[in-house]
Amino acid sequence: MASYQNITVIGSGVIGASWTALFLANGLKVTVNDPRPDLEESTLKGIEEITPSLKALGYEIDGLTNNLHFEKDLNKAVKEADLIQENGPETVAFKQDLYVKMEAYLKPDALVLSSSSSIHSSIFSEKMKNASRVLIGHPFNPPHLIPLVEVVPGTRTCRQAIRDAVQFYILIGKIPVVIEKEIPGFVANRLQAALMRESTFLVSRGIVSMENLDLIVSSSIGLRWAAAGPFKTFTLGGGPGGLPYFLDKLGPGLEHLWTTLGNPHLDRATVDLLIGQVNHSYAKIPYKELEKERDQQQLALLKALEK
Amino acid sequence: MASYQNITVIGSGVIGASWTALFLANGLKVTVNDPRPDLEESTLKGIEEITPSLKALGYEIDGLTNNLHFEKDLNKAVKEADLIQENGPETVAFKQDLYVKMEAYLKPDALVLSSSSSIHSSIFSEKMKNASRVLIGHPFNPPHLIPLVEVVPGTRTCRQAIRDAVQFYILIGKIPVVIEKEIPGFVANRLQAALMRESTFLVSRGIVSMENLDLIVSSSIGLRWAAAGPFKTFTLGGGPGGLPYFLDKLGPGLEHLWTTLGNPHLDRATVDLLIGQVNHSYAKIPYKELEKERDQQQLALLKALEK
Repeated sequence: MASYQNITVIGSGVIGASWTALFLANGLKVTVNDPRPDLEESTLKGIEEITPSLKALGYEIDGLTNNLHFEKDLNKAVKEADLIQENGPETVAFKQDLYVKMEAYLKPDALVLSSSSSIHSSIFSEKMKNASRVLIGHPFNPPHLIPLVEVVPGTRTCRQAIRDAVQFYILIGKIPVVIEKEIPGFVANRLQAALMRESTFLVSRGIVSMENLDLIVSSSIGLRWAAAGPFKTFTLGGGPGGLPYFLDKLGPGLEHLWTTLGNPHLDRATVDLLIGQVNHSYAKIPYKELEKERDQQQLALLKALEK
Repeated sequence: MASYQNITVIGSGVIGASWTALFLANGLKVTVNDPRPDLEESTLKGIEEITPSLKALGYEIDGLTNNLHFEKDLNKAVKEADLIQENGPETVAFKQDLYVKMEAYLKPDALVLSSSSSIHSSIFSEKMKNASRVLIGHPFNPPHLIPLVEVVPGTRTCRQAIRDAVQFYILIGKIPVVIEKEIPGFVANRLQAALMRESTFLVSRGIVSMENLDLIVSSSIGLRWAAAGPFKTFTLGGGPGGLPYFLDKLGPGLEHLWTTLGNPHLDRATVDLLIGQVNHSYAKIPYKELEKERDQQQLALLKALEK
């Protein structure tokens, strides 16, 4: 297989810092590129915040930043790279410009992966001469903690690049899943949006409070889907008859429920209602405390699934 | 608080057997009522299958069925009951008839809870003289394993009965959540339906395979929602600015995604496509094996969250 030793991370925001830390923890050499003046300081701070989670995941964290380098010049940052993970701003103009510039400096077989969640690689690679090794490797936030990476090829991506991307993410402990066609939001964010739409509807209609809705999710479907996705769940829901039995007996009821689902809008009144409820609940807890609690539970769940 | 020592479980199917086992494990005396000829045999078999999970949850299982009784006669089954958990067939006519008959025999302060997932208590209690202590306690399958119980009062349910139901379910280790208004599917099943609608759309359009969609869910949003529900997740997604920042920056993108979500139907072609995919994946694994694997992961996740 292709060997990726020199990794370049473009963009040192939250996602970039998380990828950087994870790559380093996996023994890779990482160069971080970003024009921001505080590049070194902010990246190191980001990595420092993530380090306890990496340790909890079982990574050796002594000397974590020994193989970390910074390079503000794009040319110098990418010319030695075997693999790029790009996390730049999500605007078409910025990315198209970046990818054209990058192409001039890249090694011919470099694999170029973008964390983009909203701009398809067919779009941002449009102005490149050769986009065969350019595709999306979209993490679910935060990348160092959540296993999924959506691997989304563009129209010009070659099959070998897709295989290489999958292999690379597996090697660093992620769960890569190939999305066959470019579609807005890919898969995870579309599913998240579908759940959020009905959640917003139910809270805005006063059926259940925001906190109680969260409690319902984490004590039923969230727990269920962490163990088995929706199709596996319904296959088991059909008993020995499996999914055919389920669809035969409960399909009509499910389809009827679809017709009753809400179609809310994030208008002023709805946003005010949501903010009002969050002000009386989560906003009372310091952000760092809420985050720590969530991440600790996340780590415990990940470890439970490893066994 | 009210004390519930004598519990009557009406209906000895899968849900009834699961409730029965859980009540017994919590030291309660349980009478199971069902007209089926194999009542005793089938209930004991159901309990036996659940026992390893109860043990793994930390319950003492020696002598689990010492306080278990069977009574095919409705009158005798309910007259001494402090609390009823009803799991009869989901048809309006059956339930309305059952609740009228039951009312004639009940102790005046008995609490009557129904596992009904589709018929509201305002409907099935309609013909009762007094429905003030009748309401829904809807578990998420299987009741002995998944913590959530949706507590849904009908229009005539009194506030004390709601409080009593919540308190009872807490005492037996469940997470009860009150749903303020009767709505089709309550909350958990509506959210499940919303996710399943988009999942069906994505698989039927060839964006992702059924197995890969399940993998995406269990390695990202499922894991996330087991630790924190959607509103808590998006509150944290907003960083120190919280939900207001999230809605301001990412709300428009989320709302745009809502407009692109699919609206599939479970027509013949879609059902055939889903069954074709399940035949090449989960259907190849024996049902009991698939179930065991899922339940083991579920138990591991529950234990991880307990800490």
